[in-house]
Amino acid sequence: MSTLQARSVSGLPEVRAGDDVAALIMAALEAEDLDGQIVAIAHKVISKSEGAVVALAEVTPTPRAQALAAEQGRDPRAVQVVLDQSQEVVRAANGVLICRTHHGFVCANAGVDASNAAARDTLITLPQDPDASARKIRTRLRELTGTAPAVLISDSFGRAWRHGQCDVAIGCAGLSPLEDWRGRTDSAGLELRATWLAVADAIAATADLARAKDSSEPVVILGGLERYVTDEDGPGAVALLRPAAEDLFR
Amino acid sequence: MSTLQARSVSGLPEVRAGDDVAALIMAALEAEDLDGQIVAIAHKVISKSEGAVVALAEVTPTPRAQALAAEQGRDPRAVQVVLDQSQEVVRAANGVLICRTHHGFVCANAGVDASNAAARDTLITLPQDPDASARKIRTRLRELTGTAPAVLISDSFGRAWRHGQCDVAIGCAGLSPLEDWRGRTDSAGLELRATWLAVADAIAATADLARAKDSSEPVVILGGLERYVTDEDGPGAVALLRPAAEDLFR
Repeated sequence: MSTLQARSVSGLPEVRAGDDVAALIMAALEAEDLDGQIVAIAHKVISKSEGAVVALAEVTPTPRAQALAAEQGRDPRAVQVVLDQSQEVVRAANGVLICRTHHGFVCANAGVDASNAAARDTLITLPQDPDASARKIRTRLRELTGTAPAVLISDSFGRAWRHGQCDVAIGCAGLSPLEDWRGRTDSAGLELRATWLAVADAIAATADLARAKDSSEPVVILGGLERYVTDEDGPGAVALLRPAAEDLFR
Repeated sequence: MSTLQARSVSGLPEVRAGDDVAALIMAALEAEDLDGQIVAIAHKVISKSEGAVVALAEVTPTPRAQALAAEQGRDPRAVQVVLDQSQEVVRAANGVLICRTHHGFVCANAGVDASNAAARDTLITLPQDPDASARKIRTRLRELTGTAPAVLISDSFGRAWRHGQCDVAIGCAGLSPLEDWRGRTDSAGLELRATWLAVADAIAATADLARAKDSSEPVVILGGLERYVTDEDGPGAVALLRPAAEDLFR
Protein backbone atom coordinates (compact mmCIF):
# COMPACT_ATOMS: atom_id res chain seq x y z
CA MET A 1 0.00 0.00 0.00
CA SER A 2 1.18 3.50 -0.74
CA THR A 3 -0.43 6.80 0.16
CA LEU A 4 -0.25 10.29 -1.21
CA GLN A 5 -1.51 13.40 0.51
CA ALA A 6 -2.18 16.85 -0.92
CA ARG A 7 -3.07 19.77 1.33
CA SER A 8 -3.80 23.33 0.36
CA VAL A 9 -2.06 26.14 2.22
CA SER A 10 -4.15 28.81 3.91
CA GLY A 11 -3.22 32.35 4.70
CA LEU A 12 -1.10 33.32 1.72
CA PRO A 13 -1.53 37.08 1.20
CA GLU A 14 -2.39 38.68 -2.14
CA VAL A 15 0.89 38.57 -4.06
CA ARG A 16 2.34 41.71 -5.67
CA ALA A 17 5.18 42.37 -8.11
CA GLY A 18 8.53 41.81 -6.48
CA ASP A 19 7.18 39.67 -3.63
CA ASP A 20 9.33 36.79 -2.37
CA VAL A 21 6.88 33.93 -3.01
CA ALA A 22 9.05 31.32 -1.30
CA ALA A 23 9.20 33.40 1.87
CA LEU A 24 5.43 33.99 1.77
CA ILE A 25 4.83 30.26 1.45
CA MET A 26 7.14 29.42 4.35
CA ALA A 27 5.48 32.09 6.51
CA ALA A 28 2.07 30.57 5.77
CA LEU A 29 3.34 27.07 6.50
CA GLU A 30 5.26 27.89 9.67
CA ALA A 31 8.36 25.78 10.31
CA GLU A 32 7.28 22.74 8.36
CA ASP A 33 9.73 20.18 6.98
CA LEU A 34 9.35 20.14 3.20
CA ASP A 35 12.07 17.54 2.55
CA GLY A 36 10.87 15.21 -0.21
CA GLN A 37 7.61 17.14 -0.62
CA ILE A 38 6.30 18.88 -3.72
CA VAL A 39 5.21 22.52 -3.58
CA ALA A 40 2.64 23.05 -6.34
CA ILE A 41 1.85 26.68 -7.12
CA ALA A 42 -0.91 28.05 -9.36
CA HIS A 43 0.90 30.14 -11.96
CA LYS A 44 -0.99 33.34 -11.21
CA VAL A 45 0.94 33.80 -7.99
CA ILE A 46 4.21 33.50 -9.90
CA SER A 47 3.01 35.75 -12.72
CA LYS A 48 1.97 38.46 -10.28
CA SER A 49 5.24 38.28 -8.35
CA GLU A 50 7.14 38.61 -11.63
CA GLY A 51 4.99 41.46 -12.87
CA ALA A 52 3.56 39.39 -15.73
CA VAL A 53 0.47 41.57 -15.71
CA VAL A 54 -0.80 43.87 -18.46
CA ALA A 55 -3.12 46.84 -18.03
CA LEU A 56 -5.55 46.97 -20.94
CA ALA A 57 -5.37 50.76 -20.94
CA GLU A 58 -1.74 50.57 -22.02
CA VAL A 59 -2.30 48.22 -24.97
CA THR A 60 -2.58 49.46 -28.57
CA PRO A 61 -4.08 46.73 -30.77
CA THR A 62 -2.59 46.06 -34.19
CA PRO A 63 -4.86 45.72 -37.23
CA ARG A 64 -4.55 41.93 -36.93
CA ALA A 65 -5.76 42.03 -33.32
CA GLN A 66 -8.61 44.34 -34.32
CA ALA A 67 -9.72 41.98 -37.10
CA LEU A 68 -9.55 38.90 -34.88
CA ALA A 69 -11.37 40.71 -32.08
CA ALA A 70 -14.16 41.80 -34.42
CA GLU A 71 -14.49 38.25 -35.74
CA GLN A 72 -14.56 36.69 -32.26
CA GLY A 73 -16.48 39.37 -30.35
CA ARG A 74 -13.54 40.20 -28.09
CA ASP A 75 -11.83 43.34 -26.78
CA PRO A 76 -9.10 44.13 -29.35
CA ARG A 77 -6.67 45.04 -26.57
CA ALA A 78 -7.17 41.67 -24.88
CA VAL A 79 -6.66 39.92 -28.23
CA GLN A 80 -3.43 41.90 -28.67
CA VAL A 81 -2.16 40.66 -25.30
CA VAL A 82 -2.94 37.08 -26.38
CA LEU A 83 -1.13 37.57 -29.70
CA ASP A 84 1.88 39.03 -27.91
CA GLN A 85 2.13 35.77 -25.93
CA SER A 86 1.76 33.49 -28.97
CA GLN A 87 3.93 32.07 -31.69
CA GLU A 88 0.89 30.70 -33.52
CA VAL A 89 -2.91 30.92 -33.39
CA VAL A 90 -4.01 27.29 -33.82
CA ARG A 91 -7.76 27.95 -33.96
CA ALA A 92 -10.06 30.91 -33.45
CA ALA A 93 -13.73 30.18 -32.83
CA ASN A 94 -16.54 30.78 -30.34
CA GLY A 95 -14.69 33.78 -28.88
CA VAL A 96 -11.67 31.67 -27.96
CA LEU A 97 -8.21 31.72 -29.47
CA ILE A 98 -6.37 28.42 -29.13
CA CYS A 99 -2.72 29.44 -29.28
CA ARG A 100 0.74 27.97 -29.14
CA THR A 101 2.54 30.19 -26.65
CA HIS A 102 6.15 31.31 -26.96
CA HIS A 103 7.00 28.47 -24.56
CA GLY A 104 5.26 25.96 -26.86
CA PHE A 105 2.16 25.32 -24.72
CA VAL A 106 -1.10 24.95 -26.64
CA CYS A 107 -3.94 26.44 -24.64
CA ALA A 108 -6.89 28.81 -24.77
CA ASN A 109 -5.99 32.50 -25.08
CA ALA A 110 -2.27 31.69 -24.66
CA GLY A 111 -2.88 31.33 -20.94
CA VAL A 112 -3.89 34.99 -20.62
CA ASP A 113 -6.54 35.32 -17.95
CA ALA A 114 -8.64 37.95 -16.25
CA SER A 115 -9.76 35.93 -13.25
CA ASN A 116 -8.09 36.55 -9.93
CA ALA A 117 -6.38 39.63 -11.31
CA ALA A 118 -5.78 42.15 -8.56
CA ALA A 119 -7.44 44.91 -10.56
CA ARG A 120 -10.13 45.03 -13.17
CA ASP A 121 -9.05 45.72 -16.75
CA THR A 122 -5.83 43.90 -16.00
CA LEU A 123 -4.77 40.64 -17.58
CA ILE A 124 -2.37 38.08 -16.16
CA THR A 125 -0.04 36.31 -18.57
CA LEU A 126 1.95 33.12 -18.08
CA PRO A 127 5.41 33.57 -16.53
CA GLN A 128 8.02 34.24 -19.20
CA ASP A 129 10.01 31.08 -18.35
CA PRO A 130 8.05 28.94 -15.86
CA ASP A 131 10.83 26.35 -15.47
CA ALA A 132 13.22 29.15 -14.52
CA SER A 133 10.58 30.49 -12.11
CA ALA A 134 10.31 27.04 -10.49
CA ARG A 135 14.09 26.75 -10.17
CA LYS A 136 14.25 30.20 -8.60
CA ILE A 137 11.55 29.38 -6.03
CA ARG A 138 13.29 26.10 -5.26
CA THR A 139 16.66 27.80 -4.72
CA ARG A 140 15.01 30.29 -2.40
CA LEU A 141 13.22 27.53 -0.46
CA ARG A 142 16.58 25.80 -0.02
CA GLU A 143 18.09 29.05 1.32
CA LEU A 144 15.20 29.52 3.73
CA THR A 145 14.78 25.96 4.99
CA GLY A 146 17.96 23.99 4.22
CA THR A 147 15.97 21.47 2.17
CA ALA A 148 14.83 21.65 -1.41
CA PRO A 149 11.33 20.33 -2.09
CA ALA A 150 10.29 19.92 -5.71
CA VAL A 151 8.49 22.97 -7.10
CA LEU A 152 5.76 22.77 -9.71
CA ILE A 153 3.92 25.63 -11.43
CA SER A 154 0.51 24.82 -12.93
CA ASP A 155 -2.20 26.21 -15.13
CA SER A 156 -5.64 24.89 -16.13
CA PHE A 157 -5.71 23.79 -19.77
CA GLY A 158 -8.55 22.53 -21.94
CA ARG A 159 -8.00 19.28 -23.79
CA ALA A 160 -8.77 17.79 -27.17
CA TRP A 161 -11.72 15.38 -27.29
CA ARG A 162 -12.84 15.92 -23.69
CA HIS A 163 -14.89 18.55 -21.87
CA GLY A 164 -13.53 20.61 -19.02
CA GLN A 165 -10.05 21.58 -17.97
CA CYS A 166 -7.35 19.87 -15.99
CA ASP A 167 -4.34 21.49 -14.39
CA VAL A 168 -1.05 20.66 -16.10
CA ALA A 169 2.54 21.54 -15.26
CA ILE A 170 3.94 24.57 -17.05
CA GLY A 171 7.13 24.67 -14.95
CA CYS A 172 8.94 22.44 -12.51
CA ALA A 173 12.24 21.97 -10.71
CA GLY A 174 13.50 19.00 -8.72
CA LEU A 175 10.84 16.76 -10.23
CA SER A 176 10.92 13.97 -12.82
CA PRO A 177 8.25 15.28 -15.21
CA LEU A 178 7.87 11.96 -17.02
CA GLU A 179 8.30 8.37 -15.88
CA ASP A 180 9.24 6.04 -18.68
CA TRP A 181 8.12 2.43 -18.35
CA ARG A 182 8.30 1.69 -22.05
CA GLY A 183 10.14 -1.56 -22.62
CA ARG A 184 9.92 -2.55 -18.95
CA THR A 185 7.79 -5.51 -17.95
CA ASP A 186 4.68 -5.60 -15.82
CA SER A 187 4.05 -7.81 -12.81
CA ALA A 188 3.21 -10.75 -15.10
CA GLY A 189 6.48 -10.31 -17.00
CA LEU A 190 4.73 -8.89 -20.05
CA GLU A 191 6.01 -5.82 -21.78
CA LEU A 192 4.25 -2.57 -20.88
CA ARG A 193 3.79 -1.22 -24.38
CA ALA A 194 3.05 2.44 -24.15
CA THR A 195 3.45 3.37 -20.54
CA TRP A 196 5.03 6.74 -20.30
CA LEU A 197 3.50 8.62 -17.41
CA ALA A 198 3.10 12.39 -17.48
CA VAL A 199 3.93 12.57 -13.78
CA ALA A 200 4.15 16.36 -13.55
CA ASP A 201 0.74 16.79 -15.17
CA ALA A 202 -0.84 14.22 -12.84
CA ILE A 203 0.66 16.07 -9.87
CA ALA A 204 -0.72 19.36 -11.16
CA ALA A 205 -4.18 17.78 -11.51
CA THR A 206 -3.95 16.37 -7.99
CA ALA A 207 -2.96 19.73 -6.52
CA ASP A 208 -5.91 21.41 -8.20
CA LEU A 209 -8.29 18.87 -6.65
CA ALA A 210 -6.97 19.75 -3.19
CA ARG A 211 -8.35 23.28 -3.33
CA ALA A 212 -11.67 24.85 -4.14
CA LYS A 213 -11.46 27.35 -6.98
CA ASP A 214 -12.80 30.17 -4.83
CA SER A 215 -10.68 29.48 -1.78
CA SER A 216 -7.67 31.67 -2.62
CA GLU A 217 -5.37 28.74 -1.97
CA PRO A 218 -2.89 28.78 -4.84
CA VAL A 219 -0.32 26.63 -3.03
CA VAL A 220 -0.67 22.90 -2.35
CA ILE A 221 1.90 20.67 -0.62
CA LEU A 222 2.06 17.05 -1.79
CA GLY A 223 3.63 14.19 0.13
CA GLY A 224 4.08 10.51 -0.62
CA LEU A 225 5.62 11.18 -4.03
CA GLU A 226 9.26 11.21 -2.92
CA ARG A 227 10.16 8.81 -5.75
CA TYR A 228 9.66 11.64 -8.23
CA VAL A 229 11.61 14.30 -6.28
CA THR A 230 15.20 14.71 -7.48
CA ASP A 231 18.30 16.48 -6.19
CA GLU A 232 18.95 17.97 -9.60
CA ASP A 233 16.51 20.56 -10.87
CA GLY A 234 16.08 18.34 -13.96
CA PRO A 235 14.63 19.04 -17.41
CA GLY A 236 11.59 21.02 -16.30
CA ALA A 237 8.09 20.99 -17.75
CA VAL A 238 9.44 21.82 -21.19
CA ALA A 239 10.18 18.08 -21.42
CA LEU A 240 6.40 17.54 -21.64
CA LEU A 241 6.07 19.46 -24.90
CA ARG A 242 5.35 17.14 -27.81
CA PRO A 243 6.80 18.35 -31.14
CA ALA A 244 4.07 18.78 -33.74
CA ALA A 245 5.73 16.24 -36.06
CA GLU A 246 5.36 13.47 -33.44
CA ASP A 247 1.81 14.31 -32.44
CA LEU A 248 -0.86 11.85 -33.56
CA PHE A 249 -3.54 13.27 -31.25
CA ARG A 250 -4.72 16.18 -33.34
CA MET B 1 -6.82 24.26 4.45
CA SER B 2 -8.18 21.14 2.85
CA THR B 3 -6.55 17.77 2.41
CA LEU B 4 -7.02 14.89 0.05
CA GLN B 5 -5.59 11.41 0.50
CA ALA B 6 -5.23 8.61 -2.02
CA ARG B 7 -4.08 5.16 -0.98
CA SER B 8 -3.60 2.11 -3.12
CA VAL B 9 -5.12 -1.17 -2.01
CA SER B 10 -2.86 -4.21 -1.56
CA GLY B 11 -3.74 -7.87 -1.80
CA LEU B 12 -6.30 -7.89 -4.58
CA PRO B 13 -6.06 -11.27 -6.33
CA GLU B 14 -5.74 -11.71 -10.10
CA VAL B 15 -9.28 -11.07 -11.38
CA ARG B 16 -11.02 -13.57 -13.67
CA ALA B 17 -14.21 -13.52 -15.75
CA GLY B 18 -17.28 -13.57 -13.51
CA ASP B 19 -15.45 -12.41 -10.38
CA ASP B 20 -17.31 -10.11 -7.97
CA VAL B 21 -14.92 -7.14 -8.04
CA ALA B 22 -16.74 -5.26 -5.28
CA ALA B 23 -16.46 -8.25 -2.94
CA LEU B 24 -12.77 -8.68 -3.79
CA ILE B 25 -12.13 -5.02 -3.00
CA MET B 26 -13.96 -5.19 0.33
CA ALA B 27 -12.07 -8.38 1.27
CA ALA B 28 -8.77 -6.63 0.54
CA LEU B 29 -9.82 -3.54 2.53
CA GLU B 30 -11.29 -5.37 5.53
CA ALA B 31 -14.18 -3.65 7.28
CA GLU B 32 -13.33 -0.11 6.23
CA ASP B 33 -15.90 2.69 6.10
CA LEU B 34 -16.09 3.93 2.52
CA ASP B 35 -18.81 6.53 3.13
CA GLY B 36 -17.98 9.64 1.10
CA GLN B 37 -14.87 8.02 -0.38
CA ILE B 38 -14.07 7.38 -4.03
CA VAL B 39 -13.07 3.91 -5.20
CA ALA B 40 -10.94 4.31 -8.34
CA ILE B 41 -10.37 1.14 -10.34
CA ALA B 42 -8.02 0.62 -13.29
CA HIS B 43 -10.24 -0.60 -16.11
CA LYS B 44 -8.33 -3.83 -16.71
CA VAL B 45 -9.79 -5.32 -13.54
CA ILE B 46 -13.29 -4.52 -14.75
CA SER B 47 -12.58 -5.73 -18.27
CA LYS B 48 -11.26 -9.05 -17.00
CA SER B 49 -14.20 -9.55 -14.64
CA GLU B 50 -16.57 -8.88 -17.54
CA GLY B 51 -14.71 -11.16 -19.93
CA ALA B 52 -13.67 -8.24 -22.17
CA VAL B 53 -10.65 -10.24 -23.29
CA VAL B 54 -9.87 -11.54 -26.77
CA ALA B 55 -7.59 -14.47 -27.64
CA LEU B 56 -5.61 -13.60 -30.78
CA ALA B 57 -5.88 -17.21 -31.95
CA GLU B 58 -9.64 -16.76 -32.36
CA VAL B 59 -9.45 -13.59 -34.47
CA THR B 60 -9.73 -13.63 -38.27
CA PRO B 61 -8.52 -10.32 -39.68
CA THR B 62 -10.46 -8.65 -42.47
CA PRO B 63 -8.66 -7.32 -45.56
CA ARG B 64 -8.83 -3.83 -44.04
CA ALA B 65 -7.11 -5.02 -40.86
CA GLN B 66 -4.49 -6.84 -42.95
CA ALA B 67 -3.76 -3.71 -44.98
CA LEU B 68 -3.52 -1.47 -41.89
CA ALA B 69 -1.35 -4.03 -40.11
CA ALA B 70 1.05 -4.27 -43.07
CA GLU B 71 1.26 -0.48 -43.25
CA GLN B 72 1.87 -0.09 -39.49
CA GLY B 73 3.98 -3.19 -38.83
CA ARG B 74 1.40 -4.76 -36.54
CA ASP B 75 -0.17 -8.17 -36.04
CA PRO B 76 -3.28 -8.18 -38.30
CA ARG B 77 -5.28 -9.98 -35.62
CA ALA B 78 -4.46 -7.28 -33.04
CA VAL B 79 -5.43 -4.60 -35.57
CA GLN B 80 -8.74 -6.41 -36.13
CA VAL B 81 -9.46 -6.32 -32.39
CA VAL B 82 -8.76 -2.56 -32.40
CA LEU B 83 -11.05 -2.02 -35.39
CA ASP B 84 -13.80 -4.05 -33.71
CA GLN B 85 -13.66 -1.58 -30.80
CA SER B 86 -13.69 1.55 -32.98
CA GLN B 87 -16.22 3.70 -34.75
CA GLU B 88 -13.43 5.66 -36.50
CA VAL B 89 -9.67 5.50 -37.02
CA VAL B 90 -8.55 9.10 -36.43
CA ARG B 91 -4.89 8.61 -37.33
CA ALA B 92 -2.62 5.68 -38.13
CA ALA B 93 1.12 6.27 -37.86
CA ASN B 94 4.25 4.98 -36.13
CA GLY B 95 2.58 1.64 -35.44
CA VAL B 96 -0.21 3.28 -33.46
CA LEU B 97 -3.87 3.63 -34.37
CA ILE B 98 -5.56 6.60 -32.75
CA CYS B 99 -9.22 5.60 -32.66
CA ARG B 100 -12.57 6.86 -31.56
CA THR B 101 -14.05 3.94 -29.65
CA HIS B 102 -17.68 2.89 -29.77
CA HIS B 103 -18.10 4.80 -26.49
CA GLY B 104 -16.66 7.96 -28.10
CA PHE B 105 -13.26 7.96 -26.37
CA VAL B 106 -10.32 9.00 -28.53
CA CYS B 107 -7.24 7.01 -27.56
CA ALA B 108 -4.40 4.88 -28.86
CA ASN B 109 -5.43 1.46 -30.17
CA ALA B 110 -9.03 2.00 -28.97
CA GLY B 111 -7.86 1.20 -25.45
CA VAL B 112 -6.91 -2.36 -26.45
CA ASP B 113 -3.90 -3.46 -24.46
CA ALA B 114 -1.66 -6.45 -24.00
CA SER B 115 -0.04 -5.44 -20.73
CA ASN B 116 -1.22 -7.12 -17.56
CA ALA B 117 -3.20 -9.66 -19.57
CA ALA B 118 -3.44 -12.93 -17.70
CA ALA B 119 -2.17 -14.87 -20.68
CA ARG B 120 0.14 -14.08 -23.59
CA ASP B 121 -1.51 -13.66 -26.98
CA THR B 122 -4.53 -12.25 -25.22
CA LEU B 123 -5.75 -8.67 -25.53
CA ILE B 124 -7.82 -6.72 -23.03
CA THR B 125 -10.45 -4.34 -24.38
CA LEU B 126 -12.26 -1.52 -22.64
CA PRO B 127 -15.47 -2.50 -20.80
CA GLN B 128 -18.46 -2.35 -23.12
CA ASP B 129 -20.23 0.31 -21.04
CA PRO B 130 -17.86 1.60 -18.34
CA ASP B 131 -20.50 3.87 -16.73
CA ALA B 132 -22.80 0.86 -16.35
CA SER B 133 -19.85 -1.10 -14.91
CA ALA B 134 -19.24 1.66 -12.36
CA ARG B 135 -22.93 1.75 -11.39
CA LYS B 136 -22.94 -2.02 -10.98
CA ILE B 137 -19.87 -2.00 -8.73
CA ARG B 138 -21.40 0.83 -6.71
CA THR B 139 -24.68 -1.03 -6.26
CA ARG B 140 -22.77 -4.09 -5.10
CA LEU B 141 -20.66 -2.03 -2.66
CA ARG B 142 -23.87 -0.62 -1.21
CA GLU B 143 -25.23 -4.14 -0.76
CA LEU B 144 -22.03 -5.29 0.92
CA THR B 145 -21.34 -2.28 3.17
CA GLY B 146 -24.53 -0.26 3.54
CA THR B 147 -22.82 2.83 2.13
CA ALA B 148 -22.24 3.82 -1.47
CA PRO B 149 -18.86 5.36 -2.20
CA ALA B 150 -18.33 6.92 -5.62
CA VAL B 151 -16.85 4.50 -8.15
CA LEU B 152 -14.53 5.59 -10.96
CA ILE B 153 -13.03 3.45 -13.74
CA SER B 154 -9.87 4.77 -15.39
CA ASP B 155 -7.54 4.19 -18.29
CA SER B 156 -4.27 5.86 -19.33
CA PHE B 157 -4.71 8.04 -22.42
CA GLY B 158 -2.19 9.99 -24.46
CA ARG B 159 -2.93 13.65 -25.09
CA ALA B 160 -2.63 16.14 -27.93
CA TRP B 161 0.32 18.53 -27.68
CA ARG B 162 1.96 16.91 -24.65
CA HIS B 163 4.19 13.90 -24.08
CA GLY B 164 3.23 11.01 -21.86
CA GLN B 165 -0.10 9.68 -20.67
CA CYS B 166 -2.43 10.62 -17.86
CA ASP B 167 -5.21 8.51 -16.45
CA VAL B 168 -8.69 9.74 -17.29
CA ALA B 169 -12.14 8.58 -16.24
CA ILE B 170 -13.87 6.22 -18.68
CA GLY B 171 -16.68 5.40 -16.27
CA CYS B 172 -18.07 6.71 -13.00
CA ALA B 173 -21.07 6.50 -10.68
CA GLY B 174 -21.94 8.66 -7.68
CA LEU B 175 -19.47 11.32 -8.80
CA SER B 176 -19.86 14.79 -10.31
CA PRO B 177 -17.64 14.36 -13.38
CA LEU B 178 -17.45 18.09 -14.09
CA GLU B 179 -17.60 21.14 -11.83
CA ASP B 180 -18.89 24.20 -13.58
CA TRP B 181 -17.65 27.56 -12.31
CA ARG B 182 -18.36 29.39 -15.54
CA GLY B 183 -20.18 32.61 -14.77
CA ARG B 184 -19.42 32.40 -11.04
CA THR B 185 -17.08 34.93 -9.49
CA ASP B 186 -13.69 34.42 -7.91
CA SER B 187 -12.57 35.59 -4.48
CA ALA B 188 -12.04 39.13 -5.81
CA GLY B 189 -15.55 39.23 -7.26
CA LEU B 190 -14.30 38.88 -10.82
CA GLU B 191 -15.87 36.47 -13.22
CA LEU B 192 -14.06 33.17 -13.67
CA ARG B 193 -14.15 33.03 -17.42
CA ALA B 194 -13.47 29.47 -18.49
CA THR B 195 -13.38 27.45 -15.34
CA TRP B 196 -14.98 24.13 -15.94
CA LEU B 197 -13.08 21.49 -14.05
CA ALA B 198 -12.81 17.95 -15.35
CA VAL B 199 -13.08 16.59 -11.82
CA ALA B 200 -13.35 12.92 -12.77
CA ASP B 201 -10.22 13.09 -14.93
CA ALA B 202 -8.26 14.84 -12.17
CA ILE B 203 -9.34 12.11 -9.75
CA ALA B 204 -8.24 9.43 -12.20
CA ALA B 205 -4.84 11.11 -12.54
CA THR B 206 -4.52 11.35 -8.76
CA ALA B 207 -5.36 7.67 -8.31
CA ASP B 208 -2.74 6.67 -10.84
CA LEU B 209 -0.09 8.66 -8.94
CA ALA B 210 -0.89 6.70 -5.78
CA ARG B 211 0.35 3.41 -7.22
CA ALA B 212 3.48 2.27 -8.96
CA LYS B 213 2.78 0.78 -12.39
CA ASP B 214 4.36 -2.57 -11.46
CA SER B 215 2.73 -2.93 -8.06
CA SER B 216 -0.42 -4.79 -9.09
CA GLU B 217 -2.53 -2.26 -7.24
CA PRO B 218 -5.40 -1.44 -9.57
CA VAL B 219 -7.61 -0.03 -6.82
CA VAL B 220 -7.08 3.30 -5.05
CA ILE B 221 -9.30 4.81 -2.35
CA LEU B 222 -9.54 8.60 -2.28
CA GLY B 223 -10.73 10.68 0.65
CA GLY B 224 -11.21 14.40 1.18
CA LEU B 225 -13.26 14.80 -1.99
CA GLU B 226 -16.69 14.33 -0.41
CA ARG B 227 -17.93 17.48 -2.18
CA TYR B 228 -17.90 15.58 -5.48
CA VAL B 229 -19.60 12.42 -4.19
CA THR B 230 -23.34 12.31 -4.92
CA ASP B 231 -26.24 10.16 -3.80
CA GLU B 232 -27.43 9.79 -7.38
CA ASP B 233 -25.27 7.78 -9.74
CA GLY B 234 -25.24 10.87 -11.98
CA PRO B 235 -24.36 11.34 -15.67
CA GLY B 236 -21.23 9.17 -15.71
CA ALA B 237 -17.99 9.75 -17.59
CA VAL B 238 -19.85 10.01 -20.88
CA ALA B 239 -20.51 13.61 -19.80
CA LEU B 240 -16.80 14.30 -20.40
CA LEU B 241 -17.00 13.50 -24.11
CA ARG B 242 -16.67 16.62 -26.22
CA PRO B 243 -18.63 16.49 -29.48
CA ALA B 244 -16.33 16.96 -32.48
CA ALA B 245 -18.24 20.05 -33.59
CA GLU B 246 -17.42 21.86 -30.31
CA ASP B 247 -13.78 20.83 -30.18
CA LEU B 248 -11.25 23.58 -30.84
CA PHE B 249 -8.31 21.60 -29.51
CA ARG B 250 -7.51 19.49 -32.54
